Amino acid sequence: MTVANILHMSTGDGESSYAKNSLLQETVICKTLPILKHTILKLCDANVISGQHFKIADLGCSSSKNTLLVASNIIDIVYEVCTKNNGKPPQFEVFLNDLFGNDFNNIFKMLPGFYAKFRKEKSANPGLCFVYAVPGSFHGRLFPDKSLHFVHSSYSVHWLSQVPEGIENNGLNIFMARTSPHNVFEAYGNQFHADFTKFLQMRSEEIVCGGCMVLTLIGRRTRDPTRDDSGCIWELLAHSLLDMLKEGLVRESDINSFNIPNYFPCEDEVVKIIQNEGSFSLDNLDVFDVNWDPMDTDYENMKDSNEPRHNHGKNTANLITAVSESLLISHFGSSILEMLFMKYEKHVTTHLAKTKTRFYNVVISLSKK
Amino acid sequence: MTVANILHMSTGDGESSYAKNSLLQETVICKTLPILKHTILKLCDANVISGQHFKIADLGCSSSKNTLLVASNIIDIVYEVCTKNNGKPPQFEVFLNDLFGNDFNNIFKMLPGFYAKFRKEKSANPGLCFVYAVPGSFHGRLFPDKSLHFVHSSYSVHWLSQVPEGIENNGLNIFMARTSPHNVFEAYGNQFHADFTKFLQMRSEEIVCGGCMVLTLIGRRTRDPTRDDSGCIWELLAHSLLDMLKEGLVRESDINSFNIPNYFPCEDEVVKIIQNEGSFSLDNLDVFDVNWDPMDTDYENMKDSNEPRHNHGKNTANLITAVSESLLISHFGSSILEMLFMKYEKHVTTHLAKTKTRFYNVVISLSKK
Repeated sequence: MTVANILHMSTGDGESSYAKNSLLQETVICKTLPILKHTILKLCDANVISGQHFKIADLGCSSSKNTLLVASNIIDIVYEVCTKNNGKPPQFEVFLNDLFGNDFNNIFKMLPGFYAKFRKEKSANPGLCFVYAVPGSFHGRLFPDKSLHFVHSSYSVHWLSQVPEGIENNGLNIFMARTSPHNVFEAYGNQFHADFTKFLQMRSEEIVCGGCMVLTLIGRRTRDPTRDDSGCIWELLAHSLLDMLKEGLVRESDINSFNIPNYFPCEDEVVKIIQNEGSFSLDNLDVFDVNWDPMDTDYENMKDSNEPRHNHGKNTANLITAVSESLLISHFGSSILEMLFMKYEKHVTTHLAKTKTRFYNVVISLSKK
Repeated sequence: MTVANILHMSTGDGESSYAKNSLLQETVICKTLPILKHTILKLCDANVISGQHFKIADLGCSSSKNTLLVASNIIDIVYEVCTKNNGKPPQFEVFLNDLFGNDFNNIFKMLPGFYAKFRKEKSANPGLCFVYAVPGSFHGRLFPDKSLHFVHSSYSVHWLSQVPEGIENNGLNIFMARTSPHNVFEAYGNQFHADFTKFLQMRSEEIVCGGCMVLTLIGRRTRDPTRDDSGCIWELLAHSLLDMLKEGLVRESDINSFNIPNYFPCEDEVVKIIQNEGSFSLDNLDVFDVNWDPMDTDYENMKDSNEPRHNHGKNTANLITAVSESLLISHFGSSILEMLFMKYEKHVTTHLAKTKTRFYNVVISLSKK
């Protein structure tokens, strides 16, 4: 399976779209803003932004209002610096990247509003801002040599370029489940190692000296993947597929041949790969948790209310639908989707009633040596 | 009406889509290839392509297989030059521009094939090629200062930024019809003058010194617009609206308030605007005709055959549907469309049986002073 030609977040702006089910990703971006700000300020101080241009890339930008959130924040930070120093702000070039099937049309609908806001807010000191789309895989080259000043990526680098090879014996698991054979963990780890190394190599050719990256990805808490619950979100999807197998709605061979191209590394793995690849200095590494359903703000008990927004199982299932639908349809066809996600919602709801499982996030700030 | 937020060629790849009804535009592009080649060779000779980067923009690229045709041709020409001179080809950056509603997703579906072909054909001397999308109006800025080497635009510059103001007295005409009041011709002419001047000003800031443009647009044969049949394609659409008015299917006030934001200038006007604006040298100007239906190749008589492809009225009506549908829907609603274009097809077929009307094309090659 070539992930680059299949994977995309659910398109459009309907109920099951990524655009309507990306609060988690928004919450994560907001939590990383202090690191983003710190990195951009460092870039401004170091005079890396040559001449009048500041070229930013957001890799795996997807398609929702989050997509322009990062760019807005970066522009605000730079304007703040320029205003304080009585300097002229640079001309911003924002390159939004995602795979070929991403719903860029949906992003473009938001651009007139984005530009109008930019012109209005920055009228005191008008600069220029240009937004472009760059379809393609960040496991390959996306930009010319030494052309970027800053790269951002949130919730994308844990996607692999392909399902690891040699894991046919993963059976009815669809990810690194706690019951997976040892070679499955090894194959997933190796694939991430190869992919993240390639990611760093590609970016090291594209980013100018002193240029920076802020990357956020889902990680796992423990070194030993068999003792971690990071893959639980996919294990519950496997349980839902098993239910359908029992009911004769899905074939065993189809589940056997399906695996999710995701890997959640521990911090050590991330740090080692960066050191081995050698092009970037690791300036900062931070970790934080987010509840599966970011509307579950801990101080609200889901049992207290029947309001739809408090249905954390449903919210989480919607999030995972928007993220994995394209992969599932490409493998199983679209007919099973509705039933599958009904079952999934039940499994997630039951799970969350027992355990408050959270995504463990790793955010790193890197600079090009 | 803000054309930039409404106008787009019909989306998707269905029967009435622009993707399926853009043979005319393809034919026009192919006819301008010699001028394109001449201009690119001049650019290569003049060493304008600084260092390793060649940055190309296609303004009003629309969404069909034509969209990548121009980029392919430019890359082929540059590779030919480099091979002959034993030089290393540059890294290509291709920026595809069109308005916010353009179906960029449809273009992006073609990109994996485009990149695969690029890698295969250029494997002997592998360079790098990056394709980006730039949504926005070319009546405003799209790129940073002095960042482009070559700009191409085909069948776009005759689109105005807005319907000219002060033409409420154009009555049941929807364009510069031969029966339009004098001020309508004047208002259209002034709007084109303002828009094309702005177009040149914007590009003059974006293009490097010595950089070039090749622009193709529909023009008219005679200075006197009242003695020219260039607007006939829209006059027949007005007749179709009138038929619907008579049948009570469209309101008179709706036709009165509708005008097409197109202008087909004569060569003199184009030359004068370029001279007045002053940033560009006019290196070349050529004109050529294309039949309304490019499948009508003159040696085939439409009456000889009942094959659908020989139905020149239908082919032409489909072309105009794909081009104007978004404007018509925005003004009249979508319910009238099917009926309107059935009537339009009849009018065009009758017209073409009497007169072989052709589009008169003006192609110019400019270089930044």
